[in-house]
Amino acid sequence: MGEEKSCAALGSHILLEFHSCSANLKDSAKVREILLGAAKVAHAHIVDSFFHQFNPHGVSGVIVISESHFAIHTWPEHNYAAIDLFSCSEDLLAEDAVKFLKEAFNPKTVSVLKLDRGNLPA
Amino acid sequence: MGEEKSCAALGSHILLEFHSCSANLKDSAKVREILLGAAKVAHAHIVDSFFHQFNPHGVSGVIVISESHFAIHTWPEHNYAAIDLFSCSEDLLAEDAVKFLKEAFNPKTVSVLKLDRGNLPA
Repeated sequence: MGEEKSCAALGSHILLEFHSCSANLKDSAKVREILLGAAKVAHAHIVDSFFHQFNPHGVSGVIVISESHFAIHTWPEHNYAAIDLFSCSEDLLAEDAVKFLKEAFNPKTVSVLKLDRGNLPA
Repeated sequence: MGEEKSCAALGSHILLEFHSCSANLKDSAKVREILLGAAKVAHAHIVDSFFHQFNPHGVSGVIVISESHFAIHTWPEHNYAAIDLFSCSEDLLAEDAVKFLKEAFNPKTVSVLKLDRGNLPA
């Protein structure tokens, strides 16, 4: 095999798919509390956050952190939540945040996709 | 081959990687103007937006829209921007937003990844 160039990624993006959640996905205050809790356990530095409750259902929330952002969108009618954890810092404890979110939303089915963002030549 | 179940996705997520941008990635006002412009051409319904300029460089910005969110993080020192367009509406003109963003940031290299979010059994 040929030698490969090593690359450094500027960011790491974790995309979570939570199906059949038992937690309340309708209540923006509850969803906010959970996402902020995930930011806390990840040792993220929160810059600002915004949560919006849609009528008749569904919550959208974003936390801008010094390390990039956390975002969530919920579809209570499907017990489904899409969550993004985007980080540009190796100090962010993203895995701890994932564990926390799984425990809080309690989905029966989970999909986790990890992507590098901003791959640069070494 | 066996018959596959067809699936309906709740959301569509476009992840853009813009390398070697010629636009100014340092100025949060300029980055904000461009991302809001992309939301406009996509016919998105803006709920709220937040942009933050990091010291010494870099901008993070998020627009929460009725259709989900747009987000951007810039690394001016690498002329790189990571952009996310997350939509739960077929009415959102995401391709028009991508075209607008390409023209505005003028990257030499572009990577576009489209992902379904919330695949449900039909």
